[in-house]
Amino acid sequence: MIADNQQERLDARWVSGFVDGEGCFHVSIKKSPQMSIGWQVLPEFRIVQHERDEYVLKELQQFFQAGQVVTNHDTRKELRIRKLQDLRNIVSFFKQHPLQTKKKKDLEIFGEILELMENKKHLTFEDLTDIANLCWSMNRKVKPRFLESSETTCQKS
Amino acid sequence: MIADNQQERLDARWVSGFVDGEGCFHVSIKKSPQMSIGWQVLPEFRIVQHERDEYVLKELQQFFQAGQVVTNHDTRKELRIRKLQDLRNIVSFFKQHPLQTKKKKDLEIFGEILELMENKKHLTFEDLTDIANLCWSMNRKVKPRFLESSETTCQKS
Repeated sequence: MIADNQQERLDARWVSGFVDGEGCFHVSIKKSPQMSIGWQVLPEFRIVQHERDEYVLKELQQFFQAGQVVTNHDTRKELRIRKLQDLRNIVSFFKQHPLQTKKKKDLEIFGEILELMENKKHLTFEDLTDIANLCWSMNRKVKPRFLESSETTCQKS
Repeated sequence: MIADNQQERLDARWVSGFVDGEGCFHVSIKKSPQMSIGWQVLPEFRIVQHERDEYVLKELQQFFQAGQVVTNHDTRKELRIRKLQDLRNIVSFFKQHPLQTKKKKDLEIFGEILELMENKKHLTFEDLTDIANLCWSMNRKVKPRFLESSETTCQKS
């Protein structure tokens, strides 16, 4: 649950601005032999900062009451949130405290994917293709490996 | 003057968060034959974004009622504010709406430099050396060229 009391040090609208600059909503689709379909959808929210600002990540972790602060690489740290319920809370938070950049659109797609997952719409190739296309429209640059896999291309033909 | 009325679209605390992530307070000291001392102090506040978010820069320009939105490089745009009075207003704004990252320290030094300039404490080599050392502590990585110039090193010896 997201802290929303007077004692909270960070202001919700500051958080919205900071995440508009520094936050990242990302969904990957990875090969996973444990899953019946062979692929797993992994949504993630992260904020990366130089280690000098690790304390801000910890304050954000406290603010969202979610996630872990871990090393990203070298001198970079990240707050990483992966639990589905926490991510849903985060989407709700940003509905109340809207983003202003195009990241707002990423957040909408991210929320859509979470909803599909909650409704178990990620367990067939067809559903997963829809999710992969949403991922692609969100992260723009990289086409999900799932869409290029032989299983997927076979399904299409 | 910074807009602070109900009609303003951007929220002041959102702006504080966004600048904490994306803003940059920078002071350069450049050779300038027009100046009696031969060097000029150039403070600047800038926010760089991908061109897809240029409209946010324009909203920030409107919010601060200052600066220009120009091309940074390739697909990057920047809001650039250089007028001394505008920069002083910005420092005042962030006193009311504090930054949370280490950028807060940069802002303090930036404000200190603006004050020195306002008090004409940038017109002798000695003053300029103080300012250059402040710049160095602010931007960390790059030692100002002024501190390495022959004029400055001669002054020291």
